Amino acid sequence: MFQISVQRVTAAENNNNNNNKNNMSQQAANGVPCRGKVLTVDNMNPRVKKVEYAVRGPVVQRAVQIEKELREGVKKPFTEVIKANIGDAHAMGQKPITFFRQVLAMCSYPELLKDNMFPEDAKQRARRILEACGGHSIGAYSASQGIECIRQDVARYIEKRDGGIASNPDNIYLSTGASDAIVTILKLLVRGEGCDRTGVMISIPQYPLYSAAITDLGAVQVHYYLDEANCWSLDVAELRRALNAARQHCNPRVLCIINPGNPTGQVQSRQCIEDVIRFVKEEHLFLMADEVYQDNVYAEGCKFQSFKKVLFEMGPEYSSTVEMASFHSTSKCYMGECGFRGGYMEVINMDPEVKAQLTKLVSVRLCPPVSGQALMDLVVNPPQPDEPSYTTFMKERTAVLAELAEKARLTEQILNTVPGITCNPVQGAMYSFPRITLPQKAIDKAKEAGHIPDMFYCMKLLEEEGICLVPGSGFGQREGTFHFRYKSYHKVIFFFGLKSKLKVLLQRLRDFHQRFTQEFS
Amino acid sequence: MFQISVQRVTAAENNNNNNNKNNMSQQAANGVPCRGKVLTVDNMNPRVKKVEYAVRGPVVQRAVQIEKELREGVKKPFTEVIKANIGDAHAMGQKPITFFRQVLAMCSYPELLKDNMFPEDAKQRARRILEACGGHSIGAYSASQGIECIRQDVARYIEKRDGGIASNPDNIYLSTGASDAIVTILKLLVRGEGCDRTGVMISIPQYPLYSAAITDLGAVQVHYYLDEANCWSLDVAELRRALNAARQHCNPRVLCIINPGNPTGQVQSRQCIEDVIRFVKEEHLFLMADEVYQDNVYAEGCKFQSFKKVLFEMGPEYSSTVEMASFHSTSKCYMGECGFRGGYMEVINMDPEVKAQLTKLVSVRLCPPVSGQALMDLVVNPPQPDEPSYTTFMKERTAVLAELAEKARLTEQILNTVPGITCNPVQGAMYSFPRITLPQKAIDKAKEAGHIPDMFYCMKLLEEEGICLVPGSGFGQREGTFHFRYKSYHKVIFFFGLKSKLKVLLQRLRDFHQRFTQEFS
Repeated sequence: MFQISVQRVTAAENNNNNNNKNNMSQQAANGVPCRGKVLTVDNMNPRVKKVEYAVRGPVVQRAVQIEKELREGVKKPFTEVIKANIGDAHAMGQKPITFFRQVLAMCSYPELLKDNMFPEDAKQRARRILEACGGHSIGAYSASQGIECIRQDVARYIEKRDGGIASNPDNIYLSTGASDAIVTILKLLVRGEGCDRTGVMISIPQYPLYSAAITDLGAVQVHYYLDEANCWSLDVAELRRALNAARQHCNPRVLCIINPGNPTGQVQSRQCIEDVIRFVKEEHLFLMADEVYQDNVYAEGCKFQSFKKVLFEMGPEYSSTVEMASFHSTSKCYMGECGFRGGYMEVINMDPEVKAQLTKLVSVRLCPPVSGQALMDLVVNPPQPDEPSYTTFMKERTAVLAELAEKARLTEQILNTVPGITCNPVQGAMYSFPRITLPQKAIDKAKEAGHIPDMFYCMKLLEEEGICLVPGSGFGQREGTFHFRYKSYHKVIFFFGLKSKLKVLLQRLRDFHQRFTQEFS
Repeated sequence: MFQISVQRVTAAENNNNNNNKNNMSQQAANGVPCRGKVLTVDNMNPRVKKVEYAVRGPVVQRAVQIEKELREGVKKPFTEVIKANIGDAHAMGQKPITFFRQVLAMCSYPELLKDNMFPEDAKQRARRILEACGGHSIGAYSASQGIECIRQDVARYIEKRDGGIASNPDNIYLSTGASDAIVTILKLLVRGEGCDRTGVMISIPQYPLYSAAITDLGAVQVHYYLDEANCWSLDVAELRRALNAARQHCNPRVLCIINPGNPTGQVQSRQCIEDVIRFVKEEHLFLMADEVYQDNVYAEGCKFQSFKKVLFEMGPEYSSTVEMASFHSTSKCYMGECGFRGGYMEVINMDPEVKAQLTKLVSVRLCPPVSGQALMDLVVNPPQPDEPSYTTFMKERTAVLAELAEKARLTEQILNTVPGITCNPVQGAMYSFPRITLPQKAIDKAKEAGHIPDMFYCMKLLEEEGICLVPGSGFGQREGTFHFRYKSYHKVIFFFGLKSKLKVLLQRLRDFHQRFTQEFS
């Protein structure tokens, strides 16, 4: 029915492992040594081979194939693949913020500044960005750390967000999306062999960039479990359990937190953040706070508070010692500008010599894309109440956030009507991570075929309904439990109005689940 | 007079290496353990510490400081720092190609498509790119390998460039500048410990991205020397010498070639390319061909020929076996669009299972910046003779290339009039790498102070004349020889007319060199 490439590779590996070890050993028919490829799966970087990235894994690859088949006229039980696998807002019909794109158009083609087609505040932003670019062109390399005036704007944004706590532009590094910055900080921290290998604490479930980067860098994943029964909250006792267990076999040096959570959508309480900060101080860990969903908070009583703000409000004992990095991006929140690959990180209490090394390291890649930097600047420096673009900007921003909130609510509500699916409230971010009950027969059948049960489920859902979800196993889950990650589908709003269409989609998911359960009962 | 941060760090390392090993060992005055930083230069990733990247190294860092001092009113013997350290065309006054930027403006703000301000061919390109984007927005993630229709355009461009030799879009990977793709291929190839560690053959002089990436990945640099006496040409006997020497202590698996050369500006002959291809086939090496300067060929009798074209013209014995990757970028040639971080690579004869791993690996970073992908598309699919933008496009393109050629000629000519400086003809690319004779006293004085002699020279040139060059030691050079890399300064053309101003700049360089020679004689 479907192929899973990761497993295909593993099988090939087993077959070739012994007879291919010496490339010279094979002989062609004519007696000339047939050396085979220089680079094979057997002799390539073993760490790369181990990397897994479910968000663009086998289910998504199959979805792309199916789309191609549909275009070629192959008959399916559906006419369109619905990709609910990734937080790609624009691909799902969300419209860009007008102000942002007007400024970017002028930055791309500064002749537009001479026309009177764009509002004055947009022109002013474009002029300011261009003046900060070499040769007044976004085609010039920027400083590796990012354009200075944009870093200043980021610092001002952080200060305002955190109620006045100072932010130093020298601590801001612009990046190629948040992923780039996260991998860079992990790279600084990784070292050692055997029991001294760096351990990186990540939540389960987690966003698979973390596990992929940790594998690629040769570090050790240290898993702490989020509490599904308690709305995916984080418990410091569980952090401590995971840390102590890990200390038997590696050197845990860093704790990664995603807040609001991906894929689990929880928003951490003030108390929880304080507990985490105390924990990293006591245990002498570096803290990485992935805060890319900071504007995506929907549930009543929930509020985004940055780790930095809480750290500084806990007093100098903490604010002068705890080393941390916080990450943000242009890809999420109300912007959803994923394709521009804009982002930044703020490093706090980083040793100055390490910071010099960080600056050197980022310089090897020259600079983050300048159009992404420009977009980041607009996100942190949007139209103000006295500026002409303010009203439109606020209208667009509010509409997107309201829609996301409404979808979060609807998703939880509808999914919970399906017997065998339970979904926690989506407090924030962009996803839900519902738990699915799979019949034992389905589990057995998947295992027989060498597949992970929730991958089996998602592949079947894709083939039968054209709905593309990422199996929970790609994010990690407690042994014996199964989930999928679901990204609310935006296009439905745009074309058909929210409630009716989203309901149709969720209805199809419900029907499939019931059919699947019957088939394997 | 100046500090060199790399050396500062090394000193700190020596001082702290022993007494800081255990973070718990120090005690604060109050008896509470003072654990110091979680992350220090002593316990960070040792590979990152070893990375060097001269193009943005100490001289450039000092140049940025001096610019700040000038802005703050500090008196200097000059009023402006001339950064001849980097191939950053727009920063040096080169203007973007109008057509490219018109299309990018429409991609950023599609409302512009409704106006009649832009020519029809620009509109058609913008529409086509937008139609290939998720939700018709360049703010959507693209496929990790890059947008399909752009990969098709790249393949067509390669076919045309190489006289009809087929190119498969499935072998094209769009990238975040060429650097990203180069590091990705190196990452696939790196493995092993001790004598089995992957060796990577790089030229000396080389572009320091290669040495930095090799260090970061824990592989071994295998140096082959270009022949300065013979216009920096490459000799296969030298490749063989380097390879055999390296096989004593590592496992050389890949040969990197930069053609046209950076920093040395040579353009390889057909014969040389054939020899290299025979060599990699015989020696069972993967070939990486960095061809980002493919439009930058100036010298009479020189012509760019891609490694792929030559490979396929050598017949199926080669074209069906030699594994290679070729890299291109939007940053160089006549475009000089560095800030967009656009690029692509074509992989040839790559094992399909390795290719699946490559596709998985690039998916972890989601996708290259979509605006950079769009720009890459325009580079490979520029206005055609029957299209309205063709005349302007060709005029702009030709002017830039003619200026670069004229500067290459002038640079060689003027530098060679200075006693103590010898400069090979600049056949292509964007730089010259002249050799400088330093008096023994200067060498001794530099060494006494712990500085590399050509770094000492370049720092003094920067302090006294405000001219920023990269010392030859950053690229590698034969023991006992000294060089700098010089990037022709473009701004002079734009503001003042080429010859007079470029001559003034080179005159200052000449005066400095004579003064320096006298001071240390």
